[in-house]
Amino acid sequence: MISLGIPDDEFIRGKVPMTKQEIRILTIVKAGIGPDSVVCDVGAGTGSISIEAARQAENGMVYAIERKPEGIELIKKNAEKFGVKNIRIIEAYAPDGMEELPELDVAIIGGSGSNLPVILDTIHQKLVPGGKIVINCITVQTIAQCLEYMRNREDYRYEAIQVQVNQLEQVGAYDMAKANNPIYIVTCVKEGK
Amino acid sequence: MISLGIPDDEFIRGKVPMTKQEIRILTIVKAGIGPDSVVCDVGAGTGSISIEAARQAENGMVYAIERKPEGIELIKKNAEKFGVKNIRIIEAYAPDGMEELPELDVAIIGGSGSNLPVILDTIHQKLVPGGKIVINCITVQTIAQCLEYMRNREDYRYEAIQVQVNQLEQVGAYDMAKANNPIYIVTCVKEGK
Amino acid sequence: MISLGIPDDEFIRGKVPMTKQEIRILTIVKAGIGPDSVVCDVGAGTGSISIEAARQAENGMVYAIERKPEGIELIKKNAEKFGVKNIRIIEAYAPDGMEELPELDVAIIGGSGSNLPVILDTIHQKLVPGGKIVINCITVQTIAQCLEYMRNREDYRYEAIQVQVNQLEQVGAYDMAKANNPIYIVTCVKEGK
Amino acid sequence: MISLGIPDDEFIRGKVPMTKQEIRILTIVKAGIGPDSVVCDVGAGTGSISIEAARQAENGMVYAIERKPEGIELIKKNAEKFGVKNIRIIEAYAPDGMEELPELDVAIIGGSGSNLPVILDTIHQKLVPGGKIVINCITVQTIAQCLEYMRNREDYRYEAIQVQVNQLEQVGAYDMAKANNPIYIVTCVKEGK
Repeated sequence: MISLGIPDDEFIRGKVPMTKQEIRILTIVKAGIGPDSVVCDVGAGTGSISIEAARQAENGMVYAIERKPEGIELIKKNAEKFGVKNIRIIEAYAPDGMEELPELDVAIIGGSGSNLPVILDTIHQKLVPGGKIVINCITVQTIAQCLEYMRNREDYRYEAIQVQVNQLEQVGAYDMAKANNPIYIVTCVKEGK
Repeated sequence: MISLGIPDDEFIRGKVPMTKQEIRILTIVKAGIGPDSVVCDVGAGTGSISIEAARQAENGMVYAIERKPEGIELIKKNAEKFGVKNIRIIEAYAPDGMEELPELDVAIIGGSGSNLPVILDTIHQKLVPGGKIVINCITVQTIAQCLEYMRNREDYRYEAIQVQVNQLEQVGAYDMAKANNPIYIVTCVKEGK
Repeated sequence: MISLGIPDDEFIRGKVPMTKQEIRILTIVKAGIGPDSVVCDVGAGTGSISIEAARQAENGMVYAIERKPEGIELIKKNAEKFGVKNIRIIEAYAPDGMEELPELDVAIIGGSGSNLPVILDTIHQKLVPGGKIVINCITVQTIAQCLEYMRNREDYRYEAIQVQVNQLEQVGAYDMAKANNPIYIVTCVKEGK
Repeated sequence: MISLGIPDDEFIRGKVPMTKQEIRILTIVKAGIGPDSVVCDVGAGTGSISIEAARQAENGMVYAIERKPEGIELIKKNAEKFGVKNIRIIEAYAPDGMEELPELDVAIIGGSGSNLPVILDTIHQKLVPGGKIVINCITVQTIAQCLEYMRNREDYRYEAIQVQVNQLEQVGAYDMAKANNPIYIVTCVKEGK
């Protein structure tokens, strides 16, 4: 069953920025999460990605890494709301806290602060051959850094897209386009499988 | 398991235009197809949507309606390539051929020629309460017609987005944005459940 | 001299929505305003388009039609701020107030309420052969109505684009994409010259 | 008079890629070219930017730098077609050939190969206080390099946008969106005036 595609307004979010539904869907599908996948979600924010991932990896586990206490609270509340039990929350500023992770099938990076390369190095140590990393980037510097990293590795292939979604808002007799910010999604596959 | 997200180049397609992977993913997820769903794919083209739908509806059935013989051949070949058995192909120019459809959980409209309102009327007759219709529109006239239709019905709610995806093409040391055409995706829910 | 391209933040605007600089530039250039042009700006809002138009039509005249008193005040203040004298303000809900217009070289429609077809009929009566109409549309219904109107007229050619601009906002060490709403720009030329 | 906004199909172009009309308009306007401006167009390609610039700088001069013989021929042909006399063509791979440039009011960079920083250094030597540099970037690496350069200079302010234009193509009774590739436009102002 596609348990994927929870609407944005069903998540408890406070004022923490949240990945929009369409980006969440594309991120989860491109990550290729299976029922037994072990997943790490770096910069988990409200936990919206972690929860969607955990519902796909029903027999697996999702490790949600988030540094802000406000985020940690939201992840807990959302996990409870959606009845998701296979999430472990790690309160840390990645790559801190990542040494304790087990072998990973999938890593998703929604927020990396300024530590993207070292986070990617750490994930690489944990990632199984054939494993996937999906990175969401909202700044020019992050997408550039991400591409530079992947271009310098012989053992990864990547695909990158930029996605822009406009919502049609129903205003009286009209449907008016309201823009969401564009986002880059980079999907990387570790070779060897 | 997410069997969703087949890459574009894995489909056999000839010169028939094909919905791009990201749009396919969003369409299938927004349609909320479950393992037992009965789905109709109007204007099936190469069958890429039908095949993704059939893999989700593993115990259900997908009815692919397509008028062009070239499309029919591609749907057959792709179904065979991906080992999908729960697709029935109807060679007709919708709404022709739709009277024989059973009760539907989901209808996806990728191509409607100029018959969108009558196709929607026909789907409405077949669609269960709570069922979903997802419509992909690439022209201004089609999205306008689709919104007008849904605004005139009390028994449907809809959400509409426009999605634009740019591929980053790897050219030497550079990643260069290559645009795909934007597309509107309208998701309609029939009330009553 | 290009006096075109006033930055958004130089206009006095209150809370009235304002066409963004890039859209203003494209609108004015596509309208082909010359130094002697007589221009009508329908739904003038803050007057940002009227002022840019008036600076191009330095020996011509711009008629700014706006129904809201708040808009009227802003147009006056902005005309004063930029020292533009060749603007006549008409406080009316178009097409009201348009009968008094002289022969027009250019008409720009930024806001049409629900009266687009009758506004276009009225402009047609005033527009010289070879004259141009440029229409900015932010809703699906307006662009559809605009295209339908132009398709039904033998005496106009049109070109239509959708433009989306993302601003890169400087946030610390990062440049983060912030989306503006997309807009359709339709440029119509009256034949006969 | 706005001589700006030459339609794409009026340029002679062969198979050389050409900046699209809307991007050309925004680039020229953001560059703030006046009637006496001295302008340098780096990576002039077909000369479409150079010609629009030269028509604005009617008493000034445009230096078009292009390395490919095919481009040189097109610039000459287009200059002749549009009757533009104030263009000097420099056949060189920038920054080669730039040492002979006079003091510049404006520099436009449409193509920089891999030499962007050194080209910017060279322009900086020639650019008057208050002068502008407008850079069009189609790759992630180029926009990142451009922003990094400008962030490291105290003596420049910059504004950056990403623009995406979709053409509505008239196909029978329909208007179908056809995407152009998105482009970043960075406008930099040298302080001191």
